[in-house]
Amino acid sequence: MLRFALFGAGRIGRMHADNLVRHPKAELAYVYDVVGEAAKGCAARHGAMVASSIEQALGDSAVDAVLIASSTDTHIDLIQASVEAGKAVLCEKPIDLDIARVDACWQRIRGRDPKVMIGFNRRFDPSFKAVHDAIRAGEIGDLRQVVITSRDPEVPPVAYMQVAGGLLRDMTIHDFDLARYLLGEEPLKVSCFAQALIAQEVKELNDHDTAMIIMETASGRQCCINNYRRAVYGYDQRIEAIGETGMLKAENRRPNTLERWDEKATGQKAPILHFFIERYQEAYNAEIQAFVDAVEAGAPMPVGFDDGRKALLLANAAYRSLASGRAETVEA
Amino acid sequence: MLRFALFGAGRIGRMHADNLVRHPKAELAYVYDVVGEAAKGCAARHGAMVASSIEQALGDSAVDAVLIASSTDTHIDLIQASVEAGKAVLCEKPIDLDIARVDACWQRIRGRDPKVMIGFNRRFDPSFKAVHDAIRAGEIGDLRQVVITSRDPEVPPVAYMQVAGGLLRDMTIHDFDLARYLLGEEPLKVSCFAQALIAQEVKELNDHDTAMIIMETASGRQCCINNYRRAVYGYDQRIEAIGETGMLKAENRRPNTLERWDEKATGQKAPILHFFIERYQEAYNAEIQAFVDAVEAGAPMPVGFDDGRKALLLANAAYRSLASGRAETVEA
Amino acid sequence: MLRFALFGAGRIGRMHADNLVRHPKAELAYVYDVVGEAAKGCAARHGAMVASSIEQALGDSAVDAVLIASSTDTHIDLIQASVEAGKAVLCEKPIDLDIARVDACWQRIRGRDPKVMIGFNRRFDPSFKAVHDAIRAGEIGDLRQVVITSRDPEVPPVAYMQVAGGLLRDMTIHDFDLARYLLGEEPLKVSCFAQALIAQEVKELNDHDTAMIIMETASGRQCCINNYRRAVYGYDQRIEAIGETGMLKAENRRPNTLERWDEKATGQKAPILHFFIERYQEAYNAEIQAFVDAVEAGAPMPVGFDDGRKALLLANAAYRSLASGRAETVEA
Amino acid sequence: MLRFALFGAGRIGRMHADNLVRHPKAELAYVYDVVGEAAKGCAARHGAMVASSIEQALGDSAVDAVLIASSTDTHIDLIQASVEAGKAVLCEKPIDLDIARVDACWQRIRGRDPKVMIGFNRRFDPSFKAVHDAIRAGEIGDLRQVVITSRDPEVPPVAYMQVAGGLLRDMTIHDFDLARYLLGEEPLKVSCFAQALIAQEVKELNDHDTAMIIMETASGRQCCINNYRRAVYGYDQRIEAIGETGMLKAENRRPNTLERWDEKATGQKAPILHFFIERYQEAYNAEIQAFVDAVEAGAPMPVGFDDGRKALLLANAAYRSLASGRAETVEA
Repeated sequence: MLRFALFGAGRIGRMHADNLVRHPKAELAYVYDVVGEAAKGCAARHGAMVASSIEQALGDSAVDAVLIASSTDTHIDLIQASVEAGKAVLCEKPIDLDIARVDACWQRIRGRDPKVMIGFNRRFDPSFKAVHDAIRAGEIGDLRQVVITSRDPEVPPVAYMQVAGGLLRDMTIHDFDLARYLLGEEPLKVSCFAQALIAQEVKELNDHDTAMIIMETASGRQCCINNYRRAVYGYDQRIEAIGETGMLKAENRRPNTLERWDEKATGQKAPILHFFIERYQEAYNAEIQAFVDAVEAGAPMPVGFDDGRKALLLANAAYRSLASGRAETVEA
Repeated sequence: MLRFALFGAGRIGRMHADNLVRHPKAELAYVYDVVGEAAKGCAARHGAMVASSIEQALGDSAVDAVLIASSTDTHIDLIQASVEAGKAVLCEKPIDLDIARVDACWQRIRGRDPKVMIGFNRRFDPSFKAVHDAIRAGEIGDLRQVVITSRDPEVPPVAYMQVAGGLLRDMTIHDFDLARYLLGEEPLKVSCFAQALIAQEVKELNDHDTAMIIMETASGRQCCINNYRRAVYGYDQRIEAIGETGMLKAENRRPNTLERWDEKATGQKAPILHFFIERYQEAYNAEIQAFVDAVEAGAPMPVGFDDGRKALLLANAAYRSLASGRAETVEA
Repeated sequence: MLRFALFGAGRIGRMHADNLVRHPKAELAYVYDVVGEAAKGCAARHGAMVASSIEQALGDSAVDAVLIASSTDTHIDLIQASVEAGKAVLCEKPIDLDIARVDACWQRIRGRDPKVMIGFNRRFDPSFKAVHDAIRAGEIGDLRQVVITSRDPEVPPVAYMQVAGGLLRDMTIHDFDLARYLLGEEPLKVSCFAQALIAQEVKELNDHDTAMIIMETASGRQCCINNYRRAVYGYDQRIEAIGETGMLKAENRRPNTLERWDEKATGQKAPILHFFIERYQEAYNAEIQAFVDAVEAGAPMPVGFDDGRKALLLANAAYRSLASGRAETVEA
Repeated sequence: MLRFALFGAGRIGRMHADNLVRHPKAELAYVYDVVGEAAKGCAARHGAMVASSIEQALGDSAVDAVLIASSTDTHIDLIQASVEAGKAVLCEKPIDLDIARVDACWQRIRGRDPKVMIGFNRRFDPSFKAVHDAIRAGEIGDLRQVVITSRDPEVPPVAYMQVAGGLLRDMTIHDFDLARYLLGEEPLKVSCFAQALIAQEVKELNDHDTAMIIMETASGRQCCINNYRRAVYGYDQRIEAIGETGMLKAENRRPNTLERWDEKATGQKAPILHFFIERYQEAYNAEIQAFVDAVEAGAPMPVGFDDGRKALLLANAAYRSLASGRAETVEA
């Protein structure tokens, strides 16, 4: 049985709590949130304790693992404190927005054989994982190109965008990780176009809502990402991979299989699942499962600290490309 | 080169003429129609002669084949005259509405080794043929069930229905033939429900516009047909076959592959092809091709007189079932 | 909070227990099974008590509701005892195989304003419910035809078939209920063909594994059911409804959205969900939800005793049709 | 009636001839090919004359139009000669591989109000045109992104590649034109990655077989093209456009609608149409139609000389990007 402390009881923290308690080998011991009421509500729902401080939870030797779902700027400190307290860590993406801080964090914890998993949930989506597994199993021979379509249903609130680090570090970071996961090689070159076409507030924040990115690995494999932040038909999440002997695709998902056929149109289906909580419900569950399994087995983390770092390096290269008008080389 | 006389220059006759002239081994020599203007227009379009009478066309020894596309009540006489004049015959379905007349016709022509093909065009549809060929090739092992969905886009004009012989002999006759084509065995038992739900004029004619029919062969294979005469989304033509080791389906066709995704619905496609001329364009072409090939090769007709007769026997059994409330046995 | 006693801790009983405990307003108080070990395992898993007898559970006034998931032959007695003990009842289908016993049960309990819901889970499937709701909302105008495809992945074990009451009362009974649910009118006439084509043991039991059934309501609406018990590609569960202004379909479901495209075939997808536990997972959950909601609200049962009775009457009419070769009238 | 001279009787020339003669308002007068036998065969098939020289055909005042389907290096001279002879011209893409020659050609012919249409056939595909028309009709509001998937089934023969001008000027040029057609604005910036991953001979020619290109217009609209030259599942031709209020897609096409469902996979469909002759059959026909209609009506060419020039400028920008590692600005 793995006993968890949850740091952060906002929307995504509560979702993780719901998944945790359903896991036969996991238990929610503490909930901490800077907003006391949020922690209280979540803890009450699952019979957990409210931690009065981070220290209280980390100081309890009965706690085995920490789930970090607080705001991005707190991740580094919480990872460090948790690792130093000897806990395994499952931390929501991104590790941080600043690669220097990420590297410093690593220097500080690396000597402790840290068990830190980064919450790139999409790797655990059954369909995306099936594409990945088929590629690795050689079903399409040598891989040549990956196409990632990733579109949000709506531009986030201004308050969120102000601290999220920009489209490429906030939203595309998932796609950068997915690219690495599927390509089986590190992208070396990144070229990026990004725009603010949808909403005035995005432009005012010097942020973007529309982007296309191409990347290439050392052996010449290519990847294209296209992002958009107001797909009115739902949360558009697709991948496609082509290789020597075939193509693999993972398509969108809908709440039901209903089709309407009428005078105007045939095969009309429901809008696709609206956003990440619904779309990646199974993925979030499988992520917790993978974390618990790995900790219990003493196995390496399924998605490690370095995966979080490398996705950020890709976002940084994309931002440099945007500024320079060049295809930029990804830092090592 | 096969030289044709065309009897009947209505909508379907003109379509056959268009297909004929495009065939590299076929030529349109004569057109005959009781409406002189119709014959004239069609003949002019293709550089053919207008036949002043049936006899003129049949009397020309340069004519090898006859395509009968005139009204149903003329089929029998034209088949007989054409066979007796030594011509090969491609006759639109049905042979006749009266099985006694069909049998008498056969008695009269059978001694002449008649080359008579009945125009069950659906056997030549690339998708339906692909299902048939896959069944025969053993792809699904022993066949168990066939489901035929066959729905017209609209109730025909009253004038047409008055002479068409009723839903089961006019429209379902295609499905009865398709059932025989796919089942690979003769249906022995037929049970039928039919209604006039769509239009008052159908009811007044004691005709039907909505029907469900189930059939069984000697070995127990089953087939279901469902008919409807106002499918607002287009001409709904599908088949499905299940066997020991799998299922085969042939789906509807659309004029293009456009999909619309919006706030209300995703995957919205165009209405399916509207009616038989568009839907079975390739099939009608392949039908002519098969006829020409068989005549040239001296091979048996791909769909013979007996196939026309047997489809009518199934329609008759369905009508008896409707009257008796019983599963009726098909006559031999 | 609704406190349940579960009678029957076999495969389906355990699944219901898993769903129950996840419901925020439901609690599993007792588990009873004739096999003590089964009850013990299930109770332990959810922190419930093992009931030493039916009477113990029914005698506990803290128990509000009973979930009957034991063998079919015990349903009637358990319904009666539970109703007489003042409990609300959610009973797996069918009520019983013998309509006389069903009617006698009703006579005995009817005076007590019984809250008895029959577990026709398919009504709660999101896709089937969406079709139903769209029909009721008038989206396709007046309904004309319903087509139900319902195929099991495998013939059940002989021991199961020996007591299950035959294909039509065991498997098709779900489809009969679905037909009533969708048609919005009672079927009056039933015509049925059924065969044992798949397995020798089915034939030896005088049972069937392949069936086609057509039905008609008073207003002439038609329904076709096709059943088969070895669909190698998975648990084939589809419905289709056509009306004045359009068609509605609910298609099969798969575990993921992966597509394989290679030299031989394109759009290759995973086999559909294998059997009822996976396919109707959401439906079983929604069923419990609907039961709990209705009991809490004092509302009528969403699927009542009479629905269980009427589905059995349709099965009986189908068996009579099979014996008589006639379209049989359904008893009132 | 428009009388044509056909220059070039290779594969694509013969296809155009077949389409031409089927057009009610077009006639094939002359065929010319440097390979005399090729001209002879094609002319004989359609009852046309073999031109002993270009001059003979252009000198015949009964010739109204010229269809240029000869090798790329002859296009410029033939366009000039034809325009100077007062003929309307339908010329296969590309105009030439060298923009200086293209511009010189234009300088020479521009004063003559030349009727020159470039054969970008994909604009006439019913599905792609439907996407275009829906965008222009405002169905998705302001357009934001276009994704073009364009993959050949096989690497072309070495002899072809040696003169074709490289992947981007030979194959991608179609996609550049499609991008302009759909975007409704000129792309200003182009960034390109290209590789030779498939075949050694491609590498030896310093050519490419795998490419990803992103482009941006003045208003910030984005377009991504992905190319690959060995899609084993067929000729992969898809487009997708997203805008303010929805997405539009055009999918691949197959020879039939057959689906196979078995133990291993469901929904298995035929490989998509193999290559351009089959895939764009309707488009090539509609292209001829559009040319004939425009000439007859004295209307502007549906795809003009400048469209051919602008597509080449995009290819050139992409080649510059490949060399410089920069996003290159498209020349005016």
